[in-house]
Amino acid sequence: MTSPAPATVSIDPANLDPVALAQALIRRPSVTPADAGAMDTLQRQLEALGFACRRMKFGEIENLYARRGTARPNLCFAGHTDVVPVGDDAAWTAGPFEAEIKDGILYGRGAVDMKSAIAAFVAAVAKIPAHPGSISFLITGDEEGVAEDGTVKVVEALAAEGEIIDHCIVGEPTSANLLGDMVKIGRRGSINAWIAVDGKQGHVAYPHRAANPIPVLVDILSRLQSRVLDEGYAGFQPSNLEVTTIDVGNAATNVIPSSAKARLNIRFNPAHKGKDLAAWIEAECRAAAEGFSGRVEVLSKISGEAFLTEPGAFTDVIVAAVTDATGRAPELSTTGGTSDARFIRALCPVVEFGLVGSTMHQVDERVPVEEIRQLAVAYEALINRYFAAFA
Amino acid sequence: MTSPAPATVSIDPANLDPVALAQALIRRPSVTPADAGAMDTLQRQLEALGFACRRMKFGEIENLYARRGTARPNLCFAGHTDVVPVGDDAAWTAGPFEAEIKDGILYGRGAVDMKSAIAAFVAAVAKIPAHPGSISFLITGDEEGVAEDGTVKVVEALAAEGEIIDHCIVGEPTSANLLGDMVKIGRRGSINAWIAVDGKQGHVAYPHRAANPIPVLVDILSRLQSRVLDEGYAGFQPSNLEVTTIDVGNAATNVIPSSAKARLNIRFNPAHKGKDLAAWIEAECRAAAEGFSGRVEVLSKISGEAFLTEPGAFTDVIVAAVTDATGRAPELSTTGGTSDARFIRALCPVVEFGLVGSTMHQVDERVPVEEIRQLAVAYEALINRYFAAFA
Repeated sequence: MTSPAPATVSIDPANLDPVALAQALIRRPSVTPADAGAMDTLQRQLEALGFACRRMKFGEIENLYARRGTARPNLCFAGHTDVVPVGDDAAWTAGPFEAEIKDGILYGRGAVDMKSAIAAFVAAVAKIPAHPGSISFLITGDEEGVAEDGTVKVVEALAAEGEIIDHCIVGEPTSANLLGDMVKIGRRGSINAWIAVDGKQGHVAYPHRAANPIPVLVDILSRLQSRVLDEGYAGFQPSNLEVTTIDVGNAATNVIPSSAKARLNIRFNPAHKGKDLAAWIEAECRAAAEGFSGRVEVLSKISGEAFLTEPGAFTDVIVAAVTDATGRAPELSTTGGTSDARFIRALCPVVEFGLVGSTMHQVDERVPVEEIRQLAVAYEALINRYFAAFA
Repeated sequence: MTSPAPATVSIDPANLDPVALAQALIRRPSVTPADAGAMDTLQRQLEALGFACRRMKFGEIENLYARRGTARPNLCFAGHTDVVPVGDDAAWTAGPFEAEIKDGILYGRGAVDMKSAIAAFVAAVAKIPAHPGSISFLITGDEEGVAEDGTVKVVEALAAEGEIIDHCIVGEPTSANLLGDMVKIGRRGSINAWIAVDGKQGHVAYPHRAANPIPVLVDILSRLQSRVLDEGYAGFQPSNLEVTTIDVGNAATNVIPSSAKARLNIRFNPAHKGKDLAAWIEAECRAAAEGFSGRVEVLSKISGEAFLTEPGAFTDVIVAAVTDATGRAPELSTTGGTSDARFIRALCPVVEFGLVGSTMHQVDERVPVEEIRQLAVAYEALINRYFAAFA
C-alpha cells in the first residue's frame, strides 16, 4: 500500500506529525556537503515553535543553533541533516529522496540516520509549549563527511561566546534491534595511522644491492598487532587495532620494490589517549627500522578521544523516559563508531538515543512510521523528566 | 667515429669475423617470441662450416640443434638468439637493431646477452676445421620469455632420442667487470609463491562481525621472513627469501577488507629442494591460519632447482682457456639469476662463460668489439683444450 505524498508538506506546528516532518526533510537531498534546503525546512518549523535560530555557516556547511528560553538548565538536542550517498539508486524499493510510505514503512536516505529523529524531537517540543529552563537544537550539515566545518566548529564558537549547554541528547540511531533497547553513554576513541617504508629497488637475485621495505613493514605490523592493548575498561569493550590496508603494487616477480605502505585504525577505550597510541606506533616503527638503510614515516590522525558520560541523574532521566515510551530498559552502551558526541562532550554530559540503526547507510534505509511516533513520545517524556529532575 | 654498416653482411666462413656475425644477428629484431630471421642467419653460417642442422620448433618458438661430427665426446655450446625488449627506443645512442660501432663499441640489443657470444663461438669453430669427437650448438629463441618452448623441450627431445652431449658451455654474459673474471659453475634455484588470504569485510568499529585477512597474512610473512634458510652451501651464497609485494587496495579508513595478497621469491642453494620449500611455505600458512574463519591459499611455482657443476677436469679446461685468452683466472661462481643451464644440467655438466653483463637488458646494451674477438680466442682455446683433455 503506497501513500503518494506531495513534493512539499505543509505542517501545522500546533499539531505536528513527526512522520510528515521526517518526509519533508528526506525530500531535501542533503548528501554531504549539500544542504538542499533541509536546514531551511527545519528552521521554519523551529521558528514557528518560538525558537530563536542562528545559522552558523563554516566553509560551505550549513549549521543551526536554535534555542527557546534563556534560563538554565539548557537541554540540547544535537543531530545532523546531512546524509550519506544513496549507493545504487536503482536498487531502492522507493526513490531514496521520495520519502514514500509503503505498508507502514517510511523509505528514504536519512529515514533512520537521522532526519526522523530530528522530526521526532521537534514534535516532542511542540507538545510542550511551556517549560522551565531552555531547550536548544545543535544541528549540523557535516556529520557524515569530514566533520571539520560542523559540530566541532559550532561547539568551539558557542564555548567562546560563553553559551552554556547543561546536558545534551544526540539523536543518532542507537537502538540495536528494537526501539529503546540501547542508548549510548560514551564512545571509543579512534586513531588512524599511515605508515610508509621507503627502501631501494633491485633484483631479487642481488638483494645486497637493494633494501626491501617489506620485511620492515611486516615487522612493524607484527609488533603492533601482537600487543593486547587492554582487557577492556569499565563500560567499554577492549581496545582494538585493525590493519586496514597494505599496498606495494609490484607486478614483477623478480623485482624487490622500493616502497611499501600500510594503514591501520585503533578504536580505543578510556584506558588510552590518542597521543600515547600515536607515540607507541612511532616507537614500534623506529624499533623495526633499526639497521634498515631506508626510511620509515608515520602519520597519525586522532579522530576522537574515548569518553564516557558516567551513569547518574542524567542517564537515569533517559532510561526512565525510554522505558515510559517503549517498555524497555535500555542497555547503557559504548559500542560502535564515532559520532559528533565526541565534540559536544567538551561542553557537557552527552547521551545518545535514537532509532534502530540496522538499515543506516544501506540501500532501502527505512523505519516503521510507528517507531518515529514512539520515538517522539520517548523524547517528550525525556524533556518532561529532565526539567523535573534538573530545573 | 661511426662505421655505417650495410643492412646485411656477407660473411666468408673461411675467415669469419665474430663482430660482423654479431652485427648480422643483432640486425634481426628477435624480441621474444619473435625470431625475425635470426635463426636462419645462424643456421646458414653453421651449414657453411659443415654442421648438420635440425630446426626444432615448439609452439611458435624456433630452436636449433646443430652438430659437426658423430663421435664422442660431444662438446655443446648453448645459447639463445632471442632478446629482451628495447625499452625507451629514443634513449639509445644508436638504434637498438642497427648494430652500429662507435669508437670501437658495438651497440645493440643482444650485444652482450648474447648474440655476440654465439658469433664468437661460431668464429672459434671456424678456426678449427678438424677435431676429434663432435661440436654441437643448442640454440633457442625462448630464453628471455616464459622459457617453456625453448631449451627445456629441446633437452627433453634430445634425451628421448638418446642424443648424448658430454659437456656443455653456455654463452651467457657471466663476466662481472672484465672479460674472464668470472665463470658460473652452478646457479641457485628459484621459487615464487603467491599467498591469498580471504576473510570477511566489515566495519572497523565492529571487528567481531568481520574477519580481517591482514593479521593472518602479516603473521605468515613474519614467520617466513624470520627463518634463516641456511648459512650458505659450498660454492653458494646463503639462500634468501624476498617478499616482493603485498596488496590489499582498501581505500576506506573505516573498513576491514575482505582479502589480502602477497607474493615472495626464494633464491636457494643446493641445501634445499623447491618442493621442500613449497611445503614449508604451506605449513607456515596453515599454522598462521589456525583459528581463522577465512581461507588461505598458496600457489608455488619452482622456476628451477639449484645445481652445481663440481670443479674438476671440465672446469679446469675452461679456467685454463680463459686464462690463455685474457690473462685472468676466473672466479668459479654460482651467483646471479637463473639461466637455461638449469635445463641442460639434466644432460651433462654445464659451465657458463661469456661477456661482461653490466649493460644487459638496459638501454645502450653494448660491448667493445675487441672483447668479442677476445671471447672468440678464449672459446677457441677452450675447444682445443677440451678435446686434448677428453678425446
